[in-house]
Amino acid sequence: MTKSLLLLPGDGIGPEVIGEVKRLIAALALDIAVEEALFGGASIDATGLPITDETVARALAVDAVLMGAVGGPKWADQAFGKRPEAGLLRLRADMGVYANLRPARCFSALADASNLKREFVEGLDILFVRELVGGVYFGTPRGIEDIGGGERRGINTQVYTSSEIRRVARTAFELARQRSNRVCSAEKSNVMEAGLLWKEEVTALHKAEYADVELSHMLADNMAMQLVKNPKQFDVILTDNLFGDILSDEAAMLTGSLGMLPSAAISEAGKPALYEPIHGSAPDIAGLGVANPCAAVLSFAMALRFSLGDAAAADRVEAAVDKALTAGARTPDIGGTLSTEGMGAAIIAAL
Amino acid sequence: MTKSLLLLPGDGIGPEVIGEVKRLIAALALDIAVEEALFGGASIDATGLPITDETVARALAVDAVLMGAVGGPKWADQAFGKRPEAGLLRLRADMGVYANLRPARCFSALADASNLKREFVEGLDILFVRELVGGVYFGTPRGIEDIGGGERRGINTQVYTSSEIRRVARTAFELARQRSNRVCSAEKSNVMEAGLLWKEEVTALHKAEYADVELSHMLADNMAMQLVKNPKQFDVILTDNLFGDILSDEAAMLTGSLGMLPSAAISEAGKPALYEPIHGSAPDIAGLGVANPCAAVLSFAMALRFSLGDAAAADRVEAAVDKALTAGARTPDIGGTLSTEGMGAAIIAAL
Ligand SMILES: CC(C)[C@H](C(=O)O)[C@@H](O)C(=O)O
Ligand SMILES: CC(C)[C@H](C(=O)O)[C@@H](O)C(=O)O
Repeated sequence: MTKSLLLLPGDGIGPEVIGEVKRLIAALALDIAVEEALFGGASIDATGLPITDETVARALAVDAVLMGAVGGPKWADQAFGKRPEAGLLRLRADMGVYANLRPARCFSALADASNLKREFVEGLDILFVRELVGGVYFGTPRGIEDIGGGERRGINTQVYTSSEIRRVARTAFELARQRSNRVCSAEKSNVMEAGLLWKEEVTALHKAEYADVELSHMLADNMAMQLVKNPKQFDVILTDNLFGDILSDEAAMLTGSLGMLPSAAISEAGKPALYEPIHGSAPDIAGLGVANPCAAVLSFAMALRFSLGDAAAADRVEAAVDKALTAGARTPDIGGTLSTEGMGAAIIAAL
Repeated sequence: MTKSLLLLPGDGIGPEVIGEVKRLIAALALDIAVEEALFGGASIDATGLPITDETVARALAVDAVLMGAVGGPKWADQAFGKRPEAGLLRLRADMGVYANLRPARCFSALADASNLKREFVEGLDILFVRELVGGVYFGTPRGIEDIGGGERRGINTQVYTSSEIRRVARTAFELARQRSNRVCSAEKSNVMEAGLLWKEEVTALHKAEYADVELSHMLADNMAMQLVKNPKQFDVILTDNLFGDILSDEAAMLTGSLGMLPSAAISEAGKPALYEPIHGSAPDIAGLGVANPCAAVLSFAMALRFSLGDAAAADRVEAAVDKALTAGARTPDIGGTLSTEGMGAAIIAAL
């Protein structure tokens, strides 16, 4: 059966990098039904909403969703909940994609791209498994309230249940078994009860079903340090939504190749998954045609492998990116002069 | 009038590094009334509590409190709230020290200590101003509850009021005026209402009273990246309690000189302040006599300057640390072979 892919180019450099994915799909002559919809700021401009019910329904009906990026200064002063980001949060929640897989790896052709000394990052290969549909992002009560005397109070709720923790921990343990078999779980169990529950549930699941995997626990502040001190100590890192947001971005930047890193947000096998580059909408370079399309292209390769049932095409795409890089193809963010289109063309030429 | 200092050596390497401060005080023959009390795990072992009411009362009665470190594996399985860290949180709250000043600076004698390439960190000098007595560390409701079906729920509350935000922002703006006059404030205003209030209150205070200071806002995840990408872009960084915990540790590790970094937690002028090294209790090297005492010594120098009314002595101590370093004195963490005592002696010799 023909598999289906919904493209959500979104804002900023999103449409530019997704454009290269479209060219790639055409070049590969893949048997995929490709659709497209407005998302984020682009959707706000057209419909008043960062995502419409119809787009959500389409996302739930396809096999994979590939997003470009959302947000930008144009919409930064929208009321809370009416921003481009609110569309992304709704999409994640409605798709139920509770496990966000975010690799931080150094490409050997780009070993000098990192701001860290080479020995600390060469061969770096971390996989973050970040909880994506719970925690303080979604907890209630939340809001800003007047408390009199010209004072306001802002409230958010960090909340996790046992099963929310266990299902994402399971994903981390399963993935670790396919890698170096080590999971390090981050929380602030020394100051937050939600973090203590996190640690206890991860420990219990490990003991019951994954005792063959090496499990360690690390306070989130210490992990922020250890990622700089000795990033290669990590294999799979398991985090909640908020710590994962911060720590995975730190780790991504360690590689010096933010424009290279794909990600996937998944739930149960067979359900649609959401793919997106790690980088954001990069308003500073949007429209200039210099964004690195590799992260989007590699996110598409992940979609091919995990949702679109075409591992062979995924291999071809990943090999082409490697080959293009090795041949010296580079956008400005990784030290070259190629345009977005030029880089896309180099990848297609290397297929 | 003779000023008073309460030493809380605490756990792990705490007593070792505070030991060198005691030697230094003796060598300087300062007119300070020095007291000492048990704290953290050491207090738990002796009294069952991580801090006693009596110790809190003494902390409120002196001019400055200097802490070593708290916590360690021995007490990690204590019930929540009965851990060494709970003593520290109570002390911060009862002292009302809402502004935690955490410098991340590179010592010129140690420019190669960082894992980052030299050009990115040479001359680095960031000052974090972290809110320390609010946010998710202290918010209620909090706890772990049974919700039936073998399930539990862990809850914490992120909460800030306008005045809590403004008072710590004021500290940041005031300190920026004495430095490079730039404040960058971190939050997740795109997903958390408490972060949006943070941004709005900081912006309003800036407009009303500190328009001469350059203010920028950055999402916390982006800051985690920017600290790696271009740390020298920052002067003063203003954060809430949790983001400050993580981001200031990341920044401290960028310098490669964690064992060198002091910190202060302050409130209104004239009230007692709490000084402590940035590093933790370092259980892995506790008792080996190799901990770097510089962070504790420099924290004491901050206490001399800001709470003990002896800026001249503070200058002498800081100059002595610089001189000892320049002469090559190093503990193992910064690439040398000196013991804690050896390093302490080198500083005293350089006075
Ligand atoms: C855009 C924003 C809502 C989002 C998040 O905070 O999760 C982004 O930072 C990410 O990590 O995908
Ligand atoms: C020990 C712990 C409670 C503390 C914190 O989380 O604030 C520490 O990490 C710090 O930053 O001083």
